[in-house]
Formats: sequence, structure tokens, C-alpha cells
Amino acid sequence: MSTSTVNPELVKARTQATFDPLQLTYFLYDGPEKTKRKRYLQNIAIKECEEQGFKRSAELTREEQYEQAIRKTTYTYKRIVELGLKDPVELYMFKEPIFPSESSPFGLHESMFLPTLQKQGTDTQRQKWVPLAKQYGVLGTYAQTELGHGTFLRGLETTATYDVKTKEFIINTPTITASKFWPGGLGKTSNHCVVMAKLILAGKDYGMQSFIVPIRDVQTHQPLPGVTVGDIGQKFGYGAMDNGFLRLDNVRIPRENMLMRYAQVLEDGTFVSPKNDKLVYGSMTLIRAQIVGGTARGLAKAVTIATRYSAVRKQSEIVPGAGEVAVLEFQTQQHKLLVQIASAYALSVAGRASLAAYTRVSAQIESGALEELPILHALSAVLKAFSSWEMAYGIEQCRMACGGHGYMLASGLPKIYAHEVPACTYEGENVVLCLQTARFLVKCQDAVNNGEKVPSFVSYLKKPKNVQSQLSDKIDLKQLIEAYEHRAGRMIAEATERIKSQLSKGLKPAEAWNESSQMLLEASLAFGHAFVVRAFIETVVSAKLEPSLASVMTQLCELYALNGINKYSGQFAKGGYFNDRQLELMESRVYDLLAALKPNAVALVDAFDFPDLVLDSDLGRYDGNVYEALMKYAERSKLNESEVHEAFYKYQKPFVDYMKSVQSKL
Amino acid sequence: MSTSTVNPELVKARTQATFDPLQLTYFLYDGPEKTKRKRYLQNIAIKECEEQGFKRSAELTREEQYEQAIRKTTYTYKRIVELGLKDPVELYMFKEPIFPSESSPFGLHESMFLPTLQKQGTDTQRQKWVPLAKQYGVLGTYAQTELGHGTFLRGLETTATYDVKTKEFIINTPTITASKFWPGGLGKTSNHCVVMAKLILAGKDYGMQSFIVPIRDVQTHQPLPGVTVGDIGQKFGYGAMDNGFLRLDNVRIPRENMLMRYAQVLEDGTFVSPKNDKLVYGSMTLIRAQIVGGTARGLAKAVTIATRYSAVRKQSEIVPGAGEVAVLEFQTQQHKLLVQIASAYALSVAGRASLAAYTRVSAQIESGALEELPILHALSAVLKAFSSWEMAYGIEQCRMACGGHGYMLASGLPKIYAHEVPACTYEGENVVLCLQTARFLVKCQDAVNNGEKVPSFVSYLKKPKNVQSQLSDKIDLKQLIEAYEHRAGRMIAEATERIKSQLSKGLKPAEAWNESSQMLLEASLAFGHAFVVRAFIETVVSAKLEPSLASVMTQLCELYALNGINKYSGQFAKGGYFNDRQLELMESRVYDLLAALKPNAVALVDAFDFPDLVLDSDLGRYDGNVYEALMKYAERSKLNESEVHEAFYKYQKPFVDYMKSVQSKL
Repeated sequence: MSTSTVNPELVKARTQATFDPLQLTYFLYDGPEKTKRKRYLQNIAIKECEEQGFKRSAELTREEQYEQAIRKTTYTYKRIVELGLKDPVELYMFKEPIFPSESSPFGLHESMFLPTLQKQGTDTQRQKWVPLAKQYGVLGTYAQTELGHGTFLRGLETTATYDVKTKEFIINTPTITASKFWPGGLGKTSNHCVVMAKLILAGKDYGMQSFIVPIRDVQTHQPLPGVTVGDIGQKFGYGAMDNGFLRLDNVRIPRENMLMRYAQVLEDGTFVSPKNDKLVYGSMTLIRAQIVGGTARGLAKAVTIATRYSAVRKQSEIVPGAGEVAVLEFQTQQHKLLVQIASAYALSVAGRASLAAYTRVSAQIESGALEELPILHALSAVLKAFSSWEMAYGIEQCRMACGGHGYMLASGLPKIYAHEVPACTYEGENVVLCLQTARFLVKCQDAVNNGEKVPSFVSYLKKPKNVQSQLSDKIDLKQLIEAYEHRAGRMIAEATERIKSQLSKGLKPAEAWNESSQMLLEASLAFGHAFVVRAFIETVVSAKLEPSLASVMTQLCELYALNGINKYSGQFAKGGYFNDRQLELMESRVYDLLAALKPNAVALVDAFDFPDLVLDSDLGRYDGNVYEALMKYAERSKLNESEVHEAFYKYQKPFVDYMKSVQSKL
Repeated sequence: MSTSTVNPELVKARTQATFDPLQLTYFLYDGPEKTKRKRYLQNIAIKECEEQGFKRSAELTREEQYEQAIRKTTYTYKRIVELGLKDPVELYMFKEPIFPSESSPFGLHESMFLPTLQKQGTDTQRQKWVPLAKQYGVLGTYAQTELGHGTFLRGLETTATYDVKTKEFIINTPTITASKFWPGGLGKTSNHCVVMAKLILAGKDYGMQSFIVPIRDVQTHQPLPGVTVGDIGQKFGYGAMDNGFLRLDNVRIPRENMLMRYAQVLEDGTFVSPKNDKLVYGSMTLIRAQIVGGTARGLAKAVTIATRYSAVRKQSEIVPGAGEVAVLEFQTQQHKLLVQIASAYALSVAGRASLAAYTRVSAQIESGALEELPILHALSAVLKAFSSWEMAYGIEQCRMACGGHGYMLASGLPKIYAHEVPACTYEGENVVLCLQTARFLVKCQDAVNNGEKVPSFVSYLKKPKNVQSQLSDKIDLKQLIEAYEHRAGRMIAEATERIKSQLSKGLKPAEAWNESSQMLLEASLAFGHAFVVRAFIETVVSAKLEPSLASVMTQLCELYALNGINKYSGQFAKGGYFNDRQLELMESRVYDLLAALKPNAVALVDAFDFPDLVLDSDLGRYDGNVYEALMKYAERSKLNESEVHEAFYKYQKPFVDYMKSVQSKL
């Protein structure tokens, strides 16, 4: 990244930094070697994107976005073979600049179709299907959600009825609401599909199973008989992705197309139960753990754009007559941005902690120990919800922090928001997930109440609630962790109490649960928040950072924790845990931290090390030359292809003539 | 609205209502007569939209949206002449179904260009320009914002230099950042423009003035010499609007094109100062007051969609085995939606209160009394900010409450969000506006501290801060108003104190202000919030509503007020104003209110009386037949125009062939 033509305001902002952002980049990307490799791969991708002449999605129609996505995808996978890339992190880094906050229609093939074959297929099935899928001749997606059904698996209507005579399953979507709806890549791209359907054997329902259903001819790509498939139309974002619908009219597939590693259907129609049905949780928790890291990256992109822009955008004077200053000089702007920078780092750390927990528990599961699976599930569920909500809110804060220009697609921010916000909904709707975690937490609370053991990371449930924080002028990070855990513990205890009080009114357990669910939701989020705060602080404290960097990261931890306390001060202070004096101290400390961190704001976002192509933003450019870029974007608008738009001749001129004629008659 | 084919779930939900929604509709639209007229006009518009075959923007490209918008606009204005519509409310109602959460490229002509001519033009200027503008031969917009400059008027770079020899102004945008940028209708539609430019007379800067600048030939519509004009490209929303850029290269206009009702430039270049320069505030406060009402309507649309959908969408069981229930049965969903319903009604009332204040003060101004102008300005500024932020947050809550389907453009929700959220930025960026109000509030606080008089609606600043709420089991709405005013009063006092403490550290006043601005921002919002709560409660209590309706509306007031207290409980409880027992009481009361209001949720949104065409949503349909509509939308996707997309032949098939050939070589 050359600095020769960099906007002087950004140069100035960068020279103010008190630490070397490269050291922080190393922290984020696991050291100098991996950082170097990341940059190497991304530079290849950037160069090739330019050579290929890929266009910005901000200048394309939705249909053009899809076509370019197929072009980009096929190009990329070819190059991946040629470059011999295998490591998931390296694949991610190579793809990132090619698909900047964009989806690939092959995405579900990679993330769901292939892994499902590998995990749920028998050896024979894997031998048959995996090689075909790996060379993309069989291209698949994963179809669970139906037009009328989402979260609640047992509510799905699609059926797979076994015909013992022909040894086939008859897959059917009997109603309009049974139509599969939403799977990525289903509309136009895939020729196969893993379909979740209710298994029916001799008229009896055996619950959900997975089936490989061919939907298009692998040669001609035409839909097969009985298959109606198509794209679902325009969405908020995801323009490049052909999310699809699928209706199956008694489509027959061989018995061997049921994925039978666990449950099986024998030739004669006998059902063989799986030995353990909890293993399916594994892949869901992995995906959720990955989402946490993804939310951090989404927010980091947005705040990089907004922070750099705020360093070059001049607007209004602080001291009258002293000239306009960069908007980053305003305390309110610092508050908006630094809080989001802190959040992006916190979520990044939480994402890693979440993945580490997955890896640790996975190893246990492989060796047959399933004890920690519920803990892992509870943790990954709430972290996915907490992080995606924080991110979605944060990205929009960043967009609005860029004023009107943030509203242009050229800013990159609308695309980032529309691309990332579905994380609040997919892979488990956030409220549903929080309540799943709450169910685990209530069990833990009951265990505490009964004097039983609980997992170590909720051991704070055992602590007394009628205590006061010892926080004083010299704020200690440990006291902030304690505060978060106190708040979570109190809220979990109170939500559990509410269930009991509802039961005592005569409600059924399920009704009492529902009548307590808003409190449970909030308690669950407080638990997730406490986990993130602890992970962030402990990681920063234990990392071997250079003193100049350690000091900045500690400030960031403190800002993150204090901002949450200010925001939810009532929840923290309840029961006299904090007094007014302490609350004022913490509020005032936030303002000190904003002033202290402001000179490092640009360095903190530079450290995320996003190439310009990944940000895809005229406002977030490393060189800060935003206005020239915006004007060029404007000039390329399709409406500018002619000086006078057709609509003038077709409608505007005849209208003006009409108005004149009416006027002259009066 | 026929109920013959209505989804039975919605029929059931409607029969549960304890009040007649039509009575509430009358409350919203000022009685039965005006409601009847509103429906009459909207039905005409709906019928004609169908006859004209206007398409949904969710199925159009951005360029098609623009072309259709010109077609719609010219059609509409023709019909307005034919129908003889003049009343602003009637015009609004007639246009609403034709432009559902969409802009018209003539919008700025109506809302800014014409009013500016009328208010700032001399009698001669008005006689010349207004008739031309009224028959649309002269079609204009209002260009203030520049690429590099927004809020800070003195920062604008465009110049208007008087040439005494030719008696012309030379209008020039000397740099790229001086380019006018963003005005609606500027890109392709307008042939004139009111340009804000720095008046230069004999080398001296006389500040901002307004000039009528012809930019396109009225006959050929070609840009005039020295004019570079075009569309700024794709945005988050506003696809139908040609927001534009404009560069003026020493364009000459006659002296008579400066709007001279106030300031004047004589033939010889003498500047004549205006008598009063505060009058310009008038139109800004009107627009902001109108925005408040607009935010209410935007949120009302979103919550209508989400509530109706939640009554028909079944998902998961509450009691295991008892069957899936409508998602509206879940407490968390009730919380999401009822809070937003309450907010939509509260903002609607605040919008009216804001307009009433404008009308009252306007009359005073006409008669020369300017005392209340600063109060009106302060109130309209914070209400615009408060309401637009509440709305933006609320619309996204509603969208996400519809799960994945809310993400489809067919849901209408992304369009509503993208169309409404700019209200946080335009007509004064929200943070800037809140701080303007804060400046007024700090003055009031200083007056209180000095024992001087303050306007009645901030008289609570005089109340002591070390008091406790008397709130008990029987919650009284007056106590809730008191609580909000106590909180606002305390926060304003504390922010004022912070400024003083910063001054005492040796900071300059402007720096002390900046160092206190986050607190000032929050105090300002607390002031706005208190105003809305009081207006909502007082309006409902004083309205002559039928008892069944009054009871529901009172519950809605209570929910609105209590939800805010729960959310910001720390701000309310500080200084011991509320104790834990009172806080718990209020939290628990919210859950009771959710249960009490749930049966009325659908009736409460039906009462907004939005025709389906205004909602433009497959999820929000009055008949609740959402799935058929979604599937039809999907089938019409442009990607479905061919069974096999071109991208398959161009990229996917060659790629698969390549991968096979590579594989076979291994």
C-alpha cells in the first residue's frame, strides 16, 4: 500500500498512532508468517480481479450480479486447483477480495452439501458421491427450510415415502407451504439437492431424514421430470445468490439416495435407528462458531470505512472561526466509532474462543465423550445471536456516521449491512437460539439451587446476589468482568424465579416458560455478553503484546466493557451492586478513553488489514481520496449513458405540453 | 376490503379484538368524514394504478424504477389537475398508493423549488417564475449540499460573483468538492435549480444566497453550456429518484436570478442587508415537523406487515404435541411487535403535536412575534432526530420479526427501511440536531440556575433532583410522565455541570462543549422522549374515545412509557428516584400488558388503514394469504425467464468440463 498519494489528513491521522498497527495485524492473523501468506494470496486475487475486469456489484443489476458471480466462482475454483490451495483459512483469504461481502452460488455446495455427504453418508455413498461433488459435476445445495416452515423441524411437510416394490423413495412436497424455499444456489445453479423430508415407512412417520435428490440433468441442466425449481426473486441483499424454491411432485429416487450413516432403511422397508442422534449438533455448532468470527469481520469492515472517512471528512468548526475539522474530532463521532472498533475486536476474540471451544469439544466427541456437547451448544447459540445483533446495529451506526454518502452503494456500507444482517436470522433465528441457551442456563441455575455441580464457566451462578462492587477510581478490568457476571447471574436467577412464580399461578410448564421468555432472552444475552467481556479481557491480558500495543488494547477492553455497563446501567446497578458514584465514574471514564483512543482510531482499523477491494468502498479507501472516487462512481451511473433520458421524451415532454394546453384553456 | 377469502388465522385474530378499529381509524384521520374522503381518494388511486399496469419496484431494475417514476409522476399530476385536488392532506393520500415508500423525481420541485421561489422571491420574481413552475415547464430542484460539504453552511464552496459590467452573476463550482451533490431530481429530471452559493461582490464574501440557475434547455432538455449534470448512481434505496451532481463552470445568470426578497444586490453591485434573517428557520421547522409524522407512518407500515404476518405464520409449539401456533403467541414476538405498535402511535401523536406547535408559532411570526421561534426550533430538531432513530430501529425489528421472508423484497420491509432511514440524515443530521436542541436546553438550565424564567414545557428543569417516585402497585400515567421529565431534567443538569467542570479545567467554551457532547446528546434525546410520552398520554386521556377503545389506548400509552423506562432503567433510577421494587413492578407490568394487548394487536394495525398497495407487501396483505403471494413473486423472478440461465453455458459447463479434464490427468 503506497502512501505517495494518500490524503494528507489520513497521513496525519496515521502518524498520531502510539503503536505499530502491523503488530496488531500479527495478533489478528496469528503471527508474521501467516500475515505474509494472507497478503500474498490476497494480492494475487486482487491482481487477477483487475485482469479479469470484474465489476463492482454497486454498478450491476441483480441479474448481472448473478451472472458475474458464476463467472467469478468458476474462475476462482479453477485458480484454487492451479494454486493448490487446501487450508480453509487460505481459501477464505484468497476468496475474500474476489467476493467482497458477496455470495457465491456454489457456497452451499461447499459449506453444506459436501459436508453433509461426508458426515451423513455411508462409506459406499461417500465413495460414489464425494468425488463427483468435488469435481463439481454434481453440484448441490441443502434444502431444509420450506415456504411455510423454518425453525421447527417436526413441522416440515415434505415427505419421503418408501415404495418397497420398486425400492425407491417417493419425495413429495404435497402443499404450497411444503415447497422448499430459500436454499442458496438452488434456483439456477445446483443440479442436486440434499432434501430434508419426513420418512414414511408403511404409512408410519419416522421423522426427518436426508435424501440426495437430483433436480436437474447433469448434462443439459434442464429440470428433471416432476421437479419445479427456480429463483425466489430480489432480496434486501444477496443479489449474486440464486436462493431458490423447489417443488417435488412425487419424484422417485433409489433407496440408496437416503443418507444412511446413522438411521437406515433396509430393502424390505425396515427402519434401523441411529445409535446416537446428538451428533448432528456438531456441524451446527461449528457453523455458529464460524458466524461469530464472521460478524467480527463484517463489523470491522464497516468501522474501517467509517473511521477512515471520518478522518478525511471535514465538517463544521469546533472553535468558531478556527476552520472546519475532521468529523473524527467530535466526541459524539468518536463515541460512535471507537465503541464499534472495540466491539469488532471483542467479537473477533469471541469468535476465536468459540472456535477453540468447538475444536476442544469435537475432539472429546470423537473419543465418545458427549458431556460438554450441551455446553458447547448453549455457548455457540447465544454467541451467534449476541454477535450478529451487535454487528447489525454497529454496521448501521457506521453507515449513518458517514452521513448522506454512507447511503450511496459506492460507500460499500449498504452492501455490507444487507450481506451481514441475515446472520441474525439464518442458522437459527436469534431469539430462538437465545431461548435454547436460556434452557441450559435455567438447568444450571436449578442445579445450583439444588447444590449440584455446574460447568465452570457458569460457576458465578453460585455467587451471592446481595453484594456490592468494590470498583473505585482506579478501575480494574477484573472488576468489570465480575460486574458482567454478577449481572448475568442475577438475571438468570430472576428469570428462573419468574418461571416458578408462573408455575405457582397454575400455568403449565410450557406456558410458564413462554410467559418468562422475554426475561429469559435478556438473561441469555447478558450471559453471552459476560462471556465476550471475559474472553476479550483475558485474551488481551495474556497475549504477549508490545507495551505500546498492550496499553491501547487494554484501553479498548475497558471501553468495550464500560460502554456496555453505561448502556445497561440499570441491569448492572440493580440490588445496589453499583452506586451512583461508581456509575458516574465509569461514564466519565468512557469520555477519557475516547480522548485517549482517538489518535489511534485509524491505526486500529488499519490493523484489520483489509485491502481496498475487500472493503469495496469509495469512502474507506486506504488513500483517503474519497471525493474523486465518489464523483467517478456517479459519472458511471447507467442513467448517465445518455444526456437526456428516454423518459423525458416518453413522458415528461408530453406532460408539459399537456399542462400548457390545459393552462391556455383556462 | 372483502373478508371472503381471508386467511382464517387473521379472521380469528380480528374477532378477538375488544374494540372497533374503525373508531381508532377515525381518531387517526380526524373523524369519519375525512376517513371517508381518504378512502375515496385512495380507492381511485388504487384502481388507476391497476389500470395503468404499474409494476412493483421489487421487480424492477434501478433504471426501470426511474423510468416508471417519471411515468407515474406525470400521470399523477395530470390526474390531480383533472380531479381538482388542492388540499395537502388530500394530495398526500391520493399519491400514497401510487408511490408506496417510493420517491417521485418531481418531489423536490414541489417541496423545495416552488416554496423557495414563493418565500424568497420578490413579487416580480414570483410573477415570472411561479406560473412557469406550476405548469412544470420550469422544473426545478434545490441544490445546497456539495460533495465535500453538508451541514455547515459557511463551508460551502460554490460562488456567485457579480459582474457589474454585464449585470450578471457568475456561478462557479471551483473544485471537485464544490460540486453540488445529492439533490433529488437533479440528475436527469430538472431543467432549473435553486443554487445556494457564496455571494461575492467586488471581491468580498457576503455569505450564502439563493440563485435560480437554468441547467437544461427547456425545449431539448440538453445541459446548457458550462453545466455538467448527472445522476449519482445506485443507493441503498431511492431507486426511483435521480439524486444528482452538478458542476457549474462559470455559468452566467442575470442579476434578476438572485432571489431578492430579503437580501438584495443592486445593479451597481451594492449589497442591501435583509431586515431579519431568522425567518428562514420557519420552513426548516415545518419540514422537520412533517418528518415526525412521516416516521410514524413508516413505522406503522412496517409493524402492520409484521403483525399480520405473525398472526398467520405458524412456527413451533408452545405446549409440546399441542401443534404449532401463530408466532404472535410467543411472548418475545409480542414484545417485539407491541412495543413498535405503541411507538408508531406515540410518534403519530408527537407528529401532530409538532405540527400544531409549528402552526401556532407561525401565526405569531406572521404578526412579528419571534420569541417562540427558538423553542419551536429546539423542539422540532430533537423530535425529528428522536422519531427517525426510533423508527429506523423499529422497522428493522419488524423486518427481522418476519424471519427469512422479511429479507425478500416481496415483504416490502427492505424497501420501507431503505426509504425511511435517510430521515436520520437529511434535513439536519440527527446528532447535529440533538446538539442544537441541547444548546437551547443548556441555556434554559442556566436560566433556571440564575432564577430566570424558562418556557413552560421545560419548567421541570426547576424541580429538585433528589426526589423519589411515589409509584406504587397501581401505576398512574402521570407518575410515568413525571419520571420521564425527572430523568430529562437530571440529565440536562448533569450535562450542564459537565460543561462547567470542563471549563474549570481550562478548556475553551467550544472545547468544553465538545467534551460534553455525548452527554448533551443523550440529555437532548431524554428531553425529546419526555415530550413524546407526555404528548401521547395527554392526547389519549383528553380524546373523547369510546370506553373500549380508551382502555386499549391507555394500555398502549402505559406500554410505551414503561418499555422506555425498562430500556433505560439506569437513567431513570439514578439518585434513588426508583427503587428496585418499583423497577420490578414496572418490568412485570410490561409482561401483563403484552398479554392484555395481544388480542388487539391485529386490530391496532388494521386501524392504520393502509391499503395493500401502500404496504406493497406479500406478508402484510389484509387477507393474510401470504404464501401464495410469495410463490407468485418468486416465479416472476427475472432469473426464471429461462429454465437454464445463460451463465450455465458460458461459465458453469466449461468449468465442469475443465475440472473433469484435470481430474482425468491426475
